[in-house]
Amino acid sequence: MSTTDDLLKNNESFSQRFDKGGLPLPPARKIAIVACMDARLNPYPILGLELGDAHVIRNAGGVITDDEIRSLAISQHLLGTEEVMLIHHTDCGMLTFDDREFADKLEAETGQRPEWEARSFPDLEQDVRDSIQRIKDSPFISRKERVRGFVYDVQTGKLREVS
Amino acid sequence: MSTTDDLLKNNESFSQRFDKGGLPLPPARKIAIVACMDARLNPYPILGLELGDAHVIRNAGGVITDDEIRSLAISQHLLGTEEVMLIHHTDCGMLTFDDREFADKLEAETGQRPEWEARSFPDLEQDVRDSIQRIKDSPFISRKERVRGFVYDVQTGKLREVS
Repeated sequence: MSTTDDLLKNNESFSQRFDKGGLPLPPARKIAIVACMDARLNPYPILGLELGDAHVIRNAGGVITDDEIRSLAISQHLLGTEEVMLIHHTDCGMLTFDDREFADKLEAETGQRPEWEARSFPDLEQDVRDSIQRIKDSPFISRKERVRGFVYDVQTGKLREVS
Repeated sequence: MSTTDDLLKNNESFSQRFDKGGLPLPPARKIAIVACMDARLNPYPILGLELGDAHVIRNAGGVITDDEIRSLAISQHLLGTEEVMLIHHTDCGMLTFDDREFADKLEAETGQRPEWEARSFPDLEQDVRDSIQRIKDSPFISRKERVRGFVYDVQTGKLREVS
């Protein structure tokens, strides 16, 4: 049996006890979280988020590309969010390789070189700062007063703000 | 006080009782989830995922753009995942507008027109199928045998597979 089949069985039990239908579409706490996809980072318990509270946007690294600007623009302009929390984390895979190395690897394995960059980074704090800046530089993000960045420690469960 | 400050207070209590340090970086269940950012969709309880089990990638719609291909390529080539679950959901905001309308709105509000498309869609199931196809068409996703797509019902908590 695949993991997918296993998780679908879990969903059967989940849906039998589900009682949170009827929540409104716009996030109750008017906030969007942008975090790394890492398996050890679950934004809900880390932040005490309840179902319906926040948009959660995630990718490799928790970086800001055009696709995160797209999601944040929809979040703010159509669904009323006003704050952004960026969350990178310690022991991130993105610290362990560089973009050229990864492109070389993909080219060696597939015969093609990606047109996109892997967006690895050598410095966690600096990438949080760069990500905040990318949001602040975008004309399509209207609420920029409350955009803050953090590093989550996967060993201790603690968030540390990057200033 | 901002929502961010509130959530940071929650993190203080969370970290005091945190006892899951020391998990390995690669996802234990070797799976990546790609889901919409919607506030009513929390992949962890829906799928019965434990901390450390899965990569979770999310954006507006749960669509597949170059940024999701980037994240999935890193997930598979560097961190060993072998399956992908795509999750769209009922009552999605992406069904309520079209890309041109949104670009017009942004242009009217900001004086600039985005170069990216909003990636709205008129048909949930069809967008799940298109997303699966985009993954299957990418040379940079090596494990394509177990890529499956679902619609999550925000009223009932149930996942339905799209065939």
